[in-house]
Amino acid sequence: METSSKRANRPAESPGFPPCEAESSDSCLGRERIDFPVAVVLPAGGSGERMGLPIPKQFCTFLDRPLISYTIQAFERVPWIENIIVVVAAEHLDLLKSIIHKHCHKKTKLVAGGPTRHRSIFNGLQVFVENGCDSQLPRPEVVIIHDAVRPFVEEEFLLKIATAAKQNGAAGAIRPLVSTVIATTPESYLDHSLDRARYRASEMPQGFLFDTIYQAYQQCSDYDFEYGTECLHLVLQYSGINAKLIEGPSSLWKVTYKRDLFAAESIIKENLSQKACVITGVHEEAIHLGHCLEKILVAGGMKVDIISTSCGDDGSFAKNVSESYNLIHITVSTACFPEIKHTVETVRKTDLPVLGPVVLIVVHLNLSECTSFSKRMDELVTIRGFAKEAKQWNILVYGLLLNYTKDKQKWNEALESFSCVAGTLIKDRKAALTGQLFVV
Amino acid sequence: METSSKRANRPAESPGFPPCEAESSDSCLGRERIDFPVAVVLPAGGSGERMGLPIPKQFCTFLDRPLISYTIQAFERVPWIENIIVVVAAEHLDLLKSIIHKHCHKKTKLVAGGPTRHRSIFNGLQVFVENGCDSQLPRPEVVIIHDAVRPFVEEEFLLKIATAAKQNGAAGAIRPLVSTVIATTPESYLDHSLDRARYRASEMPQGFLFDTIYQAYQQCSDYDFEYGTECLHLVLQYSGINAKLIEGPSSLWKVTYKRDLFAAESIIKENLSQKACVITGVHEEAIHLGHCLEKILVAGGMKVDIISTSCGDDGSFAKNVSESYNLIHITVSTACFPEIKHTVETVRKTDLPVLGPVVLIVVHLNLSECTSFSKRMDELVTIRGFAKEAKQWNILVYGLLLNYTKDKQKWNEALESFSCVAGTLIKDRKAALTGQLFVV
Repeated sequence: METSSKRANRPAESPGFPPCEAESSDSCLGRERIDFPVAVVLPAGGSGERMGLPIPKQFCTFLDRPLISYTIQAFERVPWIENIIVVVAAEHLDLLKSIIHKHCHKKTKLVAGGPTRHRSIFNGLQVFVENGCDSQLPRPEVVIIHDAVRPFVEEEFLLKIATAAKQNGAAGAIRPLVSTVIATTPESYLDHSLDRARYRASEMPQGFLFDTIYQAYQQCSDYDFEYGTECLHLVLQYSGINAKLIEGPSSLWKVTYKRDLFAAESIIKENLSQKACVITGVHEEAIHLGHCLEKILVAGGMKVDIISTSCGDDGSFAKNVSESYNLIHITVSTACFPEIKHTVETVRKTDLPVLGPVVLIVVHLNLSECTSFSKRMDELVTIRGFAKEAKQWNILVYGLLLNYTKDKQKWNEALESFSCVAGTLIKDRKAALTGQLFVV
Repeated sequence: METSSKRANRPAESPGFPPCEAESSDSCLGRERIDFPVAVVLPAGGSGERMGLPIPKQFCTFLDRPLISYTIQAFERVPWIENIIVVVAAEHLDLLKSIIHKHCHKKTKLVAGGPTRHRSIFNGLQVFVENGCDSQLPRPEVVIIHDAVRPFVEEEFLLKIATAAKQNGAAGAIRPLVSTVIATTPESYLDHSLDRARYRASEMPQGFLFDTIYQAYQQCSDYDFEYGTECLHLVLQYSGINAKLIEGPSSLWKVTYKRDLFAAESIIKENLSQKACVITGVHEEAIHLGHCLEKILVAGGMKVDIISTSCGDDGSFAKNVSESYNLIHITVSTACFPEIKHTVETVRKTDLPVLGPVVLIVVHLNLSECTSFSKRMDELVTIRGFAKEAKQWNILVYGLLLNYTKDKQKWNEALESFSCVAGTLIKDRKAALTGQLFVV
């Protein structure tokens, strides 16, 4: 077994994903510093009216998984967060229950929302204080409040907010203003523009000592509950606490407009495409091809593991497979289906497909230069039925036929073309193209 | 010749594109109302530092075309705009010259920028006033100032800004604030939050009577030139004009962060995918398939034209082909290459490939149920060389083999699968997958 790993340059705005990666690398970073109980309240009652969508935007799906599940997972994967309370409109409780079940969110609890955002948050907080109720959860010292439509929040920033909330009573994320802010007259003429340097956009997450925010809500007027937008403002007004403001990364943005759905989908796909696992088996040519491919993929910014083993029931095979949403399985024999099936079964047993579609590119390296395309194709057409079966488990199987040639220039061109096609399949993960056989 | 047309529901945020469509529909809407000369100044000197990119964001490419070209085209296609002055850093003059040449921007002129945004805009305005200079352009009555990185501005809104600028001396786009704006103390604590109802984000485009903005710039201090961000503010300060503020559509957003590049690419692709032209030839089965396909595509939100003619040198064939970035050419004979070549030649002669890649899906409807895949594949493998040639002209050719069956259920499944694959190829327009043969 040989495993080589190269960490590619991560793009500027690329939050930790997939969860398996985050947990294996730095997700324990808060364990030493967060020695107090932390919970999260996630109001998810928005209507999505700004996008003109028939469903609220938190339920829009990306790769067959709703936005809210991505946001929940951003907290689920943080070991020092104990409970996640999602507050949702009564008519969406069943929908959200099924989402939590399907995507295996284990720390998440649902609460019915109120008519406004503030009432919903207050409902969420009450889970920790109600008496005589079976469902009461242990009261946290710090509570983080976040938006259901900001799925890309990272553990590192949550740590900063939780720590500052513990020290100051309240803390909130801010970002520089993108546009100049201006005051308008009632007749829509310019009154004056603000000095951009003095102002910031208030974003989420925000963190609070639990007692501080809970007491502020207990003192709220009906007007506050109805028209207030800022928890930070309530804490200032009723507890006299000036929140500590922390500049957050641009990944805190809020999915607001239709273009944000596009951006979210692309980021999710990019995050799933950070790493590939190339399975070569023990055949010499396949191993050589695997290393050529590794070079090209790494140059393109991907992290690559190579498994050059026969994929018996080796535990480390399963471990390697379970660390990547992208598998490239190279075969030299067309009698390879048992091996491929074994790979698929291994993937099925991991948590991966529950959180996102796994791409499996079955590469047939055709060593016999004179074999006609058509014969190989007939043999590989069987991949279609196989792909159909795998698709129901959220595993996307594509076939790729690479014809070996001794002509060095042609071979390099074929490799280049191969990595372009493989890269496209990995980045786009289009379910519609599964079972197709690509030829390079 | 039969042409049927159905206008699909446009999504909420979908600016007019491609230009050929805009011109054929409503792009003359301003002709009656704009009876005064209008020019545009487009400062394009930004560095893209917020994205951490090696090149300024206006030069990032989407489908092999730089962002700045999309923004220029948004003005080029408006008939009542006479000149577009792009102000660019001296080191990018040659790059921009080649972009303008490659994408055939005809009303655009380049000017070297200054060290700040305001100096650059002023340089742009001076093109209309310098004396004794060969390159002097006729002075416009109204000048529109816009950002190079807001490519999706629509004619309808430009019309509003130009009209309001003529009436009021100055006009600017505003948008509601997405986040609460807060004032911070020097130590980064919350000072107070602003009342969101009184404030707006100031966006672009802005419009001015030429003399008003030019005189304001003539009076500017060095401090204004260095630190000022708002033209509206200068006009208020030096000409006493309170600009008229007009709420713009969300499509006015500015490409600022990396996620915005993703969003822009998706919107550009979506705009190119609004309409398809299905070429069936005269064969009965092909015509029938064309109509089945039309139904599915229209149900998916696409506008579809069907050309059921032999594609001789009919002028209306050329006209229909020139109105869509997506062609689906159905053939029943494998001896169809002359026809396909003719379609490609027709596309080459249009303006389409200069502004975006044209997708051509060559569908082979295999009527003989018993023919083996392999035989057809051998015949169709020739499509690969052909696709390679077409790609250099920005025409992306894909092959699609559809096997006819009398089993009604199987046939419906095949049609469904066909439209999924075709829809994916059209929406994604991946150059890496050209020349592939998809089988459904």
